[in-house]
Amino acid sequence: MGRWEPGARGRLAQAAMTLYAEQGFERTTAAQIAARAQLTERTFFRHFADKREVLFYGTESARDLLTSAVTSAPAGTAPMDAVSAALEALAAQFQENPERVRVRDAIVSANAELRERELVKLAGLAAAMADALRERGTPEPAASLAAETGIAVFKVAFARWISDPDRPDLPEILRTWTDELRGVLAQHPGA
Amino acid sequence: MGRWEPGARGRLAQAAMTLYAEQGFERTTAAQIAARAQLTERTFFRHFADKREVLFYGTESARDLLTSAVTSAPAGTAPMDAVSAALEALAAQFQENPERVRVRDAIVSANAELRERELVKLAGLAAAMADALRERGTPEPAASLAAETGIAVFKVAFARWISDPDRPDLPEILRTWTDELRGVLAQHPGA
Repeated sequence: MGRWEPGARGRLAQAAMTLYAEQGFERTTAAQIAARAQLTERTFFRHFADKREVLFYGTESARDLLTSAVTSAPAGTAPMDAVSAALEALAAQFQENPERVRVRDAIVSANAELRERELVKLAGLAAAMADALRERGTPEPAASLAAETGIAVFKVAFARWISDPDRPDLPEILRTWTDELRGVLAQHPGA
Repeated sequence: MGRWEPGARGRLAQAAMTLYAEQGFERTTAAQIAARAQLTERTFFRHFADKREVLFYGTESARDLLTSAVTSAPAGTAPMDAVSAALEALAAQFQENPERVRVRDAIVSANAELRERELVKLAGLAAAMADALRERGTPEPAASLAAETGIAVFKVAFARWISDPDRPDLPEILRTWTDELRGVLAQHPGA
């Protein structure tokens, strides 16, 4: 999701999410979004191809957050720990405004094309973290395994969090479930 | 990928993959595929919406293979072991005809829309394995974590395998890298 940027793009995204929450995604038009942001419709289309694209407003800042967190982890940090710390920072942003995340998730989940776009976005975030790990010297396959596994845990933790109306702490779920995964991989009998 | 089914659907898929390899995906038409399979174009469109869909011919049989492998793992098998065994069985099918897998992968990789469809397919396979684990009594989040992580390792192992012209044994890579992931998660310093 990311935080709102200053400027027209951020204002449009914020206005769009407010309207989606108030009156629903289907009933919201680009003209309404622009009006709410006190901008012209033309400005809207300079920043977004359509009202769906606004839902992926946060992808770029999420990628920046994750790669800079991986890059700036202290020397000697294990790859999986660098990935986990990066994803916890993203989770903390989600936790700042759970209602906004929930509104967005409900729209994306209800539409097959948007769910696909979401998967593409997640795959891109995994690839970006793997790149950042390789740049700090992590060899393959460790870099890709850590990044892809981190995203896999994030997906599962997010699904749990979003389905719980109490929105328990997402960074905490992520930490707990990364440990749980260590147990799952330790080949204890569980079935 | 799966094996060819007997009957029109399997014959069409086989003819399509042969033509894609011989003359390229772009230059192949539905009419040519039907002719090669000694069937009518109308029959082709009864089985496939278009020539792209033929590339995902194997999804259903892959899902069946994975879920039945998870379901039939001996009682007491750890969830991650059940998932790994299922994915190794799928990897063994890929290894049977690496050239076919390579031709298909080259087509899918070259096209953004097909890459998206592939991600959707992989997410569906993870969900199907998680369902199968839950049915044999694995609780959440262990079921989803094992299934999603298994698919994450499969993705990384497949990318390595497909990029190596010697096509080293895919089931073996999968086994080795699941062990590698255990090391990655064991928090040893690696960067």
